[in-house]
Amino acid sequence: MDVVRSRAELRRALDGRRRPLGLVPTMGWLHAGHRSLIAQAHDECGAVAVSIFVNPRQFDDPADLARYPRGEATDLRLCADAGADLVWLPSVDDVYPAGFDTSVTVERLTLPLEGAARPGHFAGVTTVVAVLFGIVRPDRAYFGEKDGQQLRVIERMARDLGMTEVVRCPTVREPDGLALSSRNVHLAADDRAAAPVLHRALLAGRAAWKAGERDASAIRDRVAAVLATERRVAVEYVSCADDVTLVELERIEGPAMLSLAARFGPTRLIDNVRLG
Amino acid sequence: MDVVRSRAELRRALDGRRRPLGLVPTMGWLHAGHRSLIAQAHDECGAVAVSIFVNPRQFDDPADLARYPRGEATDLRLCADAGADLVWLPSVDDVYPAGFDTSVTVERLTLPLEGAARPGHFAGVTTVVAVLFGIVRPDRAYFGEKDGQQLRVIERMARDLGMTEVVRCPTVREPDGLALSSRNVHLAADDRAAAPVLHRALLAGRAAWKAGERDASAIRDRVAAVLATERRVAVEYVSCADDVTLVELERIEGPAMLSLAARFGPTRLIDNVRLG
Repeated sequence: MDVVRSRAELRRALDGRRRPLGLVPTMGWLHAGHRSLIAQAHDECGAVAVSIFVNPRQFDDPADLARYPRGEATDLRLCADAGADLVWLPSVDDVYPAGFDTSVTVERLTLPLEGAARPGHFAGVTTVVAVLFGIVRPDRAYFGEKDGQQLRVIERMARDLGMTEVVRCPTVREPDGLALSSRNVHLAADDRAAAPVLHRALLAGRAAWKAGERDASAIRDRVAAVLATERRVAVEYVSCADDVTLVELERIEGPAMLSLAARFGPTRLIDNVRLG
Repeated sequence: MDVVRSRAELRRALDGRRRPLGLVPTMGWLHAGHRSLIAQAHDECGAVAVSIFVNPRQFDDPADLARYPRGEATDLRLCADAGADLVWLPSVDDVYPAGFDTSVTVERLTLPLEGAARPGHFAGVTTVVAVLFGIVRPDRAYFGEKDGQQLRVIERMARDLGMTEVVRCPTVREPDGLALSSRNVHLAADDRAAAPVLHRALLAGRAAWKAGERDASAIRDRVAAVLATERRVAVEYVSCADDVTLVELERIEGPAMLSLAARFGPTRLIDNVRLG
């Protein structure tokens, strides 16, 4: 497995790779969710590149950026085990050279949910992903469903600008249902024990939908009721939105995304399931 | 020469073309300036595609969009004569399909000059050019130096996002010095006769620079003094800016762009020359 840092090293390392080339963009502190993205790319592509870059532009809160966990040696072992051919660890200047002045934004799709909660976040995400796609030129890029709005925003951008094919990969969960996230490491023991309530709540909402409930408020209320059984959780939002536009629904008539954001102490977690 | 309209027709027409593929993006009403872009692309590329699309997103003024001149049959003849292999005439829906939601912007470089005069204009330009690059996937794209800020903004975007190589092509002028522009057709006869003052003024500024003047205000004053000899012209700005950042200069110490915008009646014209 090649490990490269500068753009020039990357170009040399990409030269002559088998196609299709798969890219797994990450911010490091890799876990079994990333491992499954890399493994899926390894199964489907001729070569797999992993980028590890903690992108300062997508953090609205400098404290959040400072405390974002990092662990290069462990990350590299996981990449090698999962079947990566190449890991790119650029510096901020490799991604954003002097004079960098371009911003890529997705508009309507970033207004609700995480976009409303974290101003500027998605502009940072779409810009860095567009840059990574432009530098690496992958045929396919792999993203997890855990960040549901992010996945849809990146799909929209890639389709609108004729970029890479975006591949959706299922959320990987702990045995108790907690979605894997680099942020889980910050959970205190009591909060970690309580956190599976997020997924339980989403499953309760989905069960109501499966039982025939089509009133989106009733579904949201069902989720909220389960969350309310856990006093350690501070709910930010519960959403039942159109799966394509992410506009909040009254009636569920087609595919929907049921999602939530919640805090355990200072740690903010998100999760979602699809209805339909 | 193939003439295609939908994205699907375009894809078929591009298939198997010789490389490098050159793209000349235009808004139609083609003149000898476009002809020289197409001819240069023809000389340098294996195949040349011309796009003709009056992009509604880059007009801040709907009246300006409505009166933008159109003439398809003449445009196609010029493309064929100049050596185009393929002309793409998309509809608005071909460029921006239902649900299109992405915007590409260049930030600092679009603050002054045309960006200040025409809010939203450059966001429309960079977004449509990114989409055209994404759909056509040219190896090179040809733009004229007449739209000096636009050229630099597109270069910046293409470099930042790892897109197409942008090729700068010299401004084509009438024998009396007036830069060719699709907008010249709107000039009343007296205004057309007066319009060469724009280029004369820029040349006077450049002559002062060649003679050793390095005070940017003195250069701007020299340009303004020549413009003031023509009572039909209403000057919007005269700029002497850093050639890379487009920040207005006090002292000229490196390459600079000397540019202006002016109105003759309702018709707004721009022009520039490079110092250095």
